[in-house]
Amino acid sequence: MTGSLTIVGLGPGAPEWITPAAQAALDDASDLVGYGPYLDRLPEREGRTKHASDNRVEVERAAQALRLAAEGRRVAVVSGGDPGVFAMAAAVFEALEAGPAAWRALPIAVEPGVTAMLAAAARAGAPLGGDFCAISLSDNLKPWEVVTARLAAALAADFVICLYNPISKARPWQLGKALALAAGRRAADTPVLFARAVGRPDESLRILTLAEARAAAGTADMATLVMIGASGTRLIAREGGAPYVYTPRSVAKSPCATSQGRT
Amino acid sequence: MTGSLTIVGLGPGAPEWITPAAQAALDDASDLVGYGPYLDRLPEREGRTKHASDNRVEVERAAQALRLAAEGRRVAVVSGGDPGVFAMAAAVFEALEAGPAAWRALPIAVEPGVTAMLAAAARAGAPLGGDFCAISLSDNLKPWEVVTARLAAALAADFVICLYNPISKARPWQLGKALALAAGRRAADTPVLFARAVGRPDESLRILTLAEARAAAGTADMATLVMIGASGTRLIAREGGAPYVYTPRSVAKSPCATSQGRT
Repeated sequence: MTGSLTIVGLGPGAPEWITPAAQAALDDASDLVGYGPYLDRLPEREGRTKHASDNRVEVERAAQALRLAAEGRRVAVVSGGDPGVFAMAAAVFEALEAGPAAWRALPIAVEPGVTAMLAAAARAGAPLGGDFCAISLSDNLKPWEVVTARLAAALAADFVICLYNPISKARPWQLGKALALAAGRRAADTPVLFARAVGRPDESLRILTLAEARAAAGTADMATLVMIGASGTRLIAREGGAPYVYTPRSVAKSPCATSQGRT
Repeated sequence: MTGSLTIVGLGPGAPEWITPAAQAALDDASDLVGYGPYLDRLPEREGRTKHASDNRVEVERAAQALRLAAEGRRVAVVSGGDPGVFAMAAAVFEALEAGPAAWRALPIAVEPGVTAMLAAAARAGAPLGGDFCAISLSDNLKPWEVVTARLAAALAADFVICLYNPISKARPWQLGKALALAAGRRAADTPVLFARAVGRPDESLRILTLAEARAAAGTADMATLVMIGASGTRLIAREGGAPYVYTPRSVAKSPCATSQGRT
């Protein structure tokens, strides 16, 4: 029996956003490894074993998955969203790099998925219509000054900014600081999205101004994707619903040369 | 009959990467509007009309789709990858903003998809393991100095950089300039991916060094996603295949404070 490991993206949560390729990898697996709440989305099945773990032990979980594959199991490491974006894929390759040489002979594949910022953008309209960046606001794995340097660069370059892992009980103040930094470069009425649990029953999408978002930072949580508009991002009113949020594809002139700090 | 418009992401090309939600929107449509090669991926069906257009007329195509929906048709605007990322969603909202007020009463939805950088990353390993950005290298809709300012900011901030629309017959030199800019901030052995037509029969994935990528810029085309690694991006050799490319999740100290220009 030849083992294998596939790192599978479940998408943001709705079953109809799981790609057929990801579904096939899940169906083919003898062992599912992942954070408990992701595994809970998948049915129990005869001959398929679930190995649930806590959220803070990605590399241990990855090493466990590689060990199982080396023992001949067909392992699926289950990730929310896309496994390559602030999820399990990098942890698996970290464990692979640090692990026994024999692991490098294992067939390892990654099945992409719809990452949270794409689902949030789809619900809102087209806020990612221009250039954009994705930053994890967690300072568990990088110093906070790296986060702020990246935010400052992204603001100066007028990217739409997607913030993953914006806030948690152990990291309560970082989102407020990030939005305060944004307010130094972007107008107070810049659209900001708080997109929570998109595709799941408790989904909520809040379209705020940057000023409102600063006041509401404490209402975000780890299931929230925060998106800060660029200077051109704007609203289109619609009948009978929240406005659409979109970023025009065109840029008239250099935002870097012309933008001024605003406080 | 009430018209509607859904902007649907087909993913990068493989049918098994089309989400069930996107498939349902395509199945439900009376009219498919899109760039010819995307429509060619979808079967002919009784009672469903295809409206193919050229690649350079996004806003006209979007306005046509809105007109059809206003006439009562169930329209699917078909986009490659994710419709929100350098694709049709922003064009639809541009047309909506400029169009008759009645269009704002139409039900408009966006169905997200797997965008090219996620598929390319999945094939390579986990190159998007850290913070990253996505930049369209086309200067059709923004001045080239905006592109270079954004590249410079992204390089200084040590983002992994995904380049969409890297090169075309009408824009032959921009990718070379972008890679030259990168070489001013990143080591010559920084991994660079040229991921072409991922998920399609003519898929190719080339893992190059930055120096090799500069020499090979002319071999990329509009179907190529170019990904420039961050300072930490590296390779893991594997048995019997190309190396994996991954970016560790951890950053030890500020790359902005310590990186030096290299030429």
